[in-house]
Amino acid sequence: MTVTAAAGFEAAGIAAGIKRSGALDLAVVVNRGPSQAAAAVFTSNRAKANPILWSEQVIVDGTVSAIVLNSGGANCFTGPEGFQVTHRTAEATASALSVSAGDVLVCSTGLIGDQLDGEVLEEGVLSAVNRLASDAVAGDDAARAIMTTDTKPKTVVIEGGGWRIGGMAKGAGMLAPGLATMLVVLTTDADLPAADLDTALRAATRVTFDRLDSDGCMSTNDQVTLLASGASGAVPAVDVFTEALTEACRNLALQLQGDAEGASHDITIEVRGAASEDDAVEVGRSVARNNLFKAAIFGNDPNWGRVLAAIGTTQAPFDPYLVDVSMNGVRVCHAGRPDAPRDDVDLTPRATHVLIELHAGEASASIFTNDLTHDYVHENSAYAS
Amino acid sequence: MTVTAAAGFEAAGIAAGIKRSGALDLAVVVNRGPSQAAAAVFTSNRAKANPILWSEQVIVDGTVSAIVLNSGGANCFTGPEGFQVTHRTAEATASALSVSAGDVLVCSTGLIGDQLDGEVLEEGVLSAVNRLASDAVAGDDAARAIMTTDTKPKTVVIEGGGWRIGGMAKGAGMLAPGLATMLVVLTTDADLPAADLDTALRAATRVTFDRLDSDGCMSTNDQVTLLASGASGAVPAVDVFTEALTEACRNLALQLQGDAEGASHDITIEVRGAASEDDAVEVGRSVARNNLFKAAIFGNDPNWGRVLAAIGTTQAPFDPYLVDVSMNGVRVCHAGRPDAPRDDVDLTPRATHVLIELHAGEASASIFTNDLTHDYVHENSAYAS
Repeated sequence: MTVTAAAGFEAAGIAAGIKRSGALDLAVVVNRGPSQAAAAVFTSNRAKANPILWSEQVIVDGTVSAIVLNSGGANCFTGPEGFQVTHRTAEATASALSVSAGDVLVCSTGLIGDQLDGEVLEEGVLSAVNRLASDAVAGDDAARAIMTTDTKPKTVVIEGGGWRIGGMAKGAGMLAPGLATMLVVLTTDADLPAADLDTALRAATRVTFDRLDSDGCMSTNDQVTLLASGASGAVPAVDVFTEALTEACRNLALQLQGDAEGASHDITIEVRGAASEDDAVEVGRSVARNNLFKAAIFGNDPNWGRVLAAIGTTQAPFDPYLVDVSMNGVRVCHAGRPDAPRDDVDLTPRATHVLIELHAGEASASIFTNDLTHDYVHENSAYAS
Repeated sequence: MTVTAAAGFEAAGIAAGIKRSGALDLAVVVNRGPSQAAAAVFTSNRAKANPILWSEQVIVDGTVSAIVLNSGGANCFTGPEGFQVTHRTAEATASALSVSAGDVLVCSTGLIGDQLDGEVLEEGVLSAVNRLASDAVAGDDAARAIMTTDTKPKTVVIEGGGWRIGGMAKGAGMLAPGLATMLVVLTTDADLPAADLDTALRAATRVTFDRLDSDGCMSTNDQVTLLASGASGAVPAVDVFTEALTEACRNLALQLQGDAEGASHDITIEVRGAASEDDAVEVGRSVARNNLFKAAIFGNDPNWGRVLAAIGTTQAPFDPYLVDVSMNGVRVCHAGRPDAPRDDVDLTPRATHVLIELHAGEASASIFTNDLTHDYVHENSAYAS
């Protein structure tokens, strides 16, 4: 069901001809109301794509009628012509739906530096608007149309009390935050104003998408959008809604991790005993970005020395001679010294748990990452070809 | 000739039995004076190996009689027993040479978390001291004895006016700074006091080893040591000496880059037009650490979009729509937009030049890195086995 699971939403996903493969490459999601409240968070990369520059303006008033998303090209570093293509896409969508272009978000994903064809996008938008529907097939087509190197669509539905959250996401590489680093559209038929949606969305992404760090590379095009139709008539408490939204975001984030380019391990790095949550995140992220650690996990090697070397590069308070490290339940390092034999650790399962106990405080956080594999190198050396 | 090229120095490299392979694994370099002035810089990793903790104390008074170095084990995160092994190694060396243990530096390199055998090291030291010589063979053996995954020894000799600098280095992975990230011993027969040596060494490493960033991973054991015997009787001006020392360090740094684990490209990232030198370094390092960029270079793909995406994650002042990017002399991005066709770029040579012109100021810097290859993943997933 994805984005059409929530009442008040229609979607479509079509093959507009942007991808040479002929695969689905353009999605439209429309909010039929009665409310059109919305919130969005964008990449913190300072090199932003044209659709980000556009969408940052659209979201200012908290009102969004529709969002149009294309795969097959990021429309990033394509100059004023590229911005005109984004603008034209929004205008075509607005015209077909009889809404204001200023209420249409645009998202693009694919290779940086390739110019998109405005004519192809405009025709695609018209075709997609003609196919809008509120059923499961339409929602699923939309989720497929935003895929790039993803091997499967990522969707979620969360049931509230008389209201729902639906969502779709794409992303398989450049998964590191600053925030989102992927395209995500979340819909809800709860009736909440834009300010509450914004609060809930920032709270949810902070502990989900922001904690996903597949390869340390931050995209130029990431956007997480939340659209609320109010069609259920239900007005949940903001904290209850935030909890459900966080669950939806966590579910999608773990789907992104599970489909990361070339990965053979989904690694949760849990940091406990940090002096602050920020310290825990910094330590977890430093380990998640350490290529030597990532390659070791690929080789099923519980190389805890690389974990400690990575922690040592952070600013977080810790004593190297108090740190414990466990891998898949086996404590291989205790108080900065060898503990259980490396051979006791079984790293063959895809799901991998690394627990770091800093003994520097009470705060904790988990970072979600992947290993560094031959397939990652292969996919990312051949992406443009 | 390496470290024995400068008058006043003797060296030895032997197989002490630390490495199971039976390869050379222990080196001693002795300064016979008349001066025993010295300077050293150490890893900025806060997780420091036992030999670093020891050597940081030894260097305080600027006097060093000898340095003993072993491969086959990093002696890092090995607890108080590990520190005792370092202490015992220094004592054994001091006793055999009739000097103070407080004037003996110790360096170790290899796997983190493995305990070294103090008995083996002590016997190795005695054997090495018996073989000390000032000839080319002795210097070459020492350079070979500190190798880990290095495929060849790294040595340098610089001729001053009546004085010389000799050097040896090891390092093939974990090449990222904070400072050194490798073991380097430099000798000179120039007669300079420890304070001048320290000034010269810090100036030289700042623009050489500190600009080498092979894989973004910072070692726990890195140390660059400069020993001066004064045996030439020459007293060069500090700036003249610093220039020669910088040349020696640059030469060794490029040898380290050229032998980086699994690399197929030696990449110079030159950043021009930055607002400050620090900004230029930050931008260059951000690109050098971007796995997607590194994998693209491995695939001979001039993917400049990944360069811009990496720049966008920095704090350096720049306008994404003014940036130019050239690869091997072909400007593929001009003012943030596609310029020459990607196909015009030939990335098949091992030497790769990426020029980034920020148009934000007058400062510049170059960072030296490598590509991300299948061989890198293979070597680093199998290192411990």
